[in-house]
Amino acid sequence: MENFVFRNPTKILFGKGQIAKLASELPAQARVLMTYGGGSIKANGVYDQVKAALGSRTVVELGGIEPNPRYETLMKGVALVKEHRLDFLLAVGGGSVADGTKFIAAAVPFTDGDPWRILADNAEVKAAVPLACVLTLPATGSEMNTAAVISRGDQKLAFLSPHVFPVFSILDPETTFSLPPRQIANGVIDSFVHVMEQYMTYPAGAPLQDRFAESILQTLVEIGPRLLASPRDYDLHASFMWTATMALNGVISVGVPQDWATHIIGHELTALHGTDHARTLAVVLPSLLSVKRATKREKLLQWADRVWGIREGTPDQRIDAGIAKMRTFFEAMGAPTRLSAHGIPASVADVVAQRLAERKVTAIGERGDITPAVVREILAAAA
Amino acid sequence: MENFVFRNPTKILFGKGQIAKLASELPAQARVLMTYGGGSIKANGVYDQVKAALGSRTVVELGGIEPNPRYETLMKGVALVKEHRLDFLLAVGGGSVADGTKFIAAAVPFTDGDPWRILADNAEVKAAVPLACVLTLPATGSEMNTAAVISRGDQKLAFLSPHVFPVFSILDPETTFSLPPRQIANGVIDSFVHVMEQYMTYPAGAPLQDRFAESILQTLVEIGPRLLASPRDYDLHASFMWTATMALNGVISVGVPQDWATHIIGHELTALHGTDHARTLAVVLPSLLSVKRATKREKLLQWADRVWGIREGTPDQRIDAGIAKMRTFFEAMGAPTRLSAHGIPASVADVVAQRLAERKVTAIGERGDITPAVVREILAAAA
Repeated sequence: MENFVFRNPTKILFGKGQIAKLASELPAQARVLMTYGGGSIKANGVYDQVKAALGSRTVVELGGIEPNPRYETLMKGVALVKEHRLDFLLAVGGGSVADGTKFIAAAVPFTDGDPWRILADNAEVKAAVPLACVLTLPATGSEMNTAAVISRGDQKLAFLSPHVFPVFSILDPETTFSLPPRQIANGVIDSFVHVMEQYMTYPAGAPLQDRFAESILQTLVEIGPRLLASPRDYDLHASFMWTATMALNGVISVGVPQDWATHIIGHELTALHGTDHARTLAVVLPSLLSVKRATKREKLLQWADRVWGIREGTPDQRIDAGIAKMRTFFEAMGAPTRLSAHGIPASVADVVAQRLAERKVTAIGERGDITPAVVREILAAAA
Repeated sequence: MENFVFRNPTKILFGKGQIAKLASELPAQARVLMTYGGGSIKANGVYDQVKAALGSRTVVELGGIEPNPRYETLMKGVALVKEHRLDFLLAVGGGSVADGTKFIAAAVPFTDGDPWRILADNAEVKAAVPLACVLTLPATGSEMNTAAVISRGDQKLAFLSPHVFPVFSILDPETTFSLPPRQIANGVIDSFVHVMEQYMTYPAGAPLQDRFAESILQTLVEIGPRLLASPRDYDLHASFMWTATMALNGVISVGVPQDWATHIIGHELTALHGTDHARTLAVVLPSLLSVKRATKREKLLQWADRVWGIREGTPDQRIDAGIAKMRTFFEAMGAPTRLSAHGIPASVADVVAQRLAERKVTAIGERGDITPAVVREILAAAA
């Protein structure tokens, strides 16, 4: 097992009726920037619950944060914080709203030039405005981690900072009852692939981390189709919400190698073609696993056995069967696993390989052996 | 799933060579009470590593904290903190040292009478001196939770407070290489039973929590005997150390019912007969599961299947087979599962039932249906 440091201070308030606890969790004198997305929270009652809980506190709103939150929109939030001397950010929505709010939190006190440098140059985040989250869409884990992904022009980039851990996050599964099936499906796939990025590498003497990761995958496979069939089953949606959080809050990745090449490649597809994030992952991952089967062999065989129950055939047959089962799962969730089904041309393989080479992203994956040429091979195989 | 609040802010520094990081993790001006047990840390080099990392900070030592830490010993620590105006507690040892240090931390600022009231009367802990831990014996999870168990006379009682979360804990698996096999075995059993207390209840619509609990149990069953056979295998001991922490840091118990009757009954046996804590659990749990099989039926069957691979026979046969496999596991770890093997007379059943009745501990277990009469039945069946 590798050495590691683990710390996750975010307080989780989970369950029915928890949004009302905003009243006591937020400082009484907090001056709040409340951020949200396209307005679904006004249709499903979450907006009203939040406003009621905020009481007489000063609240300035920033709505309209995009599914891939954009720098220009978020800089409006930075201006609002400064103009109104706000001191607490409250993200109400899914991962995009949480991610965008993390960027605002880090950008407000940033003094080392344009805050875009946090993403483009990995400029250090030395402080952030405190933030909290009311989660309405399980998927990204952003409600309990240090990560955010932000878009500008045709760039989609990530940053990490312990300063942007939410102080607390409220997870009420009932807020997810009104989600469109496509967003539920995307959340399931996104969570599944988050786990795969932290698990599907090589054995590292960490059997508990392996089993925790497999537990999340097994649970998502079990509940995914049922979520679509039963949009108001509380326990199912509660399991989904908590599973998505645990998929990317640091617990399963301690002491083990991580991959993340699927995400890096997928971000390019979203940046270029606007494809839903989760759907890019559903295309890239099966192809990546097939191309990288030699270096991921032991874990692929363990995964085929434990997650998919595949125990017959040669090793390569079992690996192929596992990948095929995963494709079937993604497609049952409504996500095609081929570029062509998303209207993305085969030429994207060259384009993405070149873009990564230009940004000097030339050694990704757990062994640093996924070069732009390998990225091209992976995308060519996903055509 | 039940509503829950989860927060665990303890920072974990895990791996080889991490003790040196004390130098940067502790405040530079900290005035430290360093606590430890019987002195094994002086034999295995941990004491020297800690002292070197503490550098020129003021350090006062309190050694001799007992395996079941005693109130009188700990009150000496309280006096030392006050006399020398110390402001940080550093526990170096296993769960007993960590637990005892948590009591010192809570007792120093306690102003509502004798600090024993924290245990005897559940008096509220409103503040605590900050503390950290260098763990040398995986077992109790105390290094990353809010709990402590303290003894006074023939009483052994527990308290919980978020104020006694360690600020950080250092877990270097190499410190466990010199542990006696009995302590390793006790740690494995203690961790196993911690998980069972949080898992073996009734289904609560929480499949991920179930699978995480089963993951820990499966890992302990897999590594337990190998730990005894390979006392210097780093990865094995690293897995054990992290598994024991995850067994009782709050992650697996969110949103589900808990039992804890085995611990309450076991504490009585230790208080009365001085039996090792883990060994009392190995006696009580098999008997409790057999007696409570009706109300724990669904989980017992799931556990027999997933943890022990038992899929044949009637439901009662599968439950009996699961319990028998657990007995075999505990005994392979060197812990007899009958009271008589520990020299404890059968009359203890009446004594414990009466002691619990006198303390009004009359409705334990996840359904509150384990009365003193049921405790008597459980211990009678464990004779």
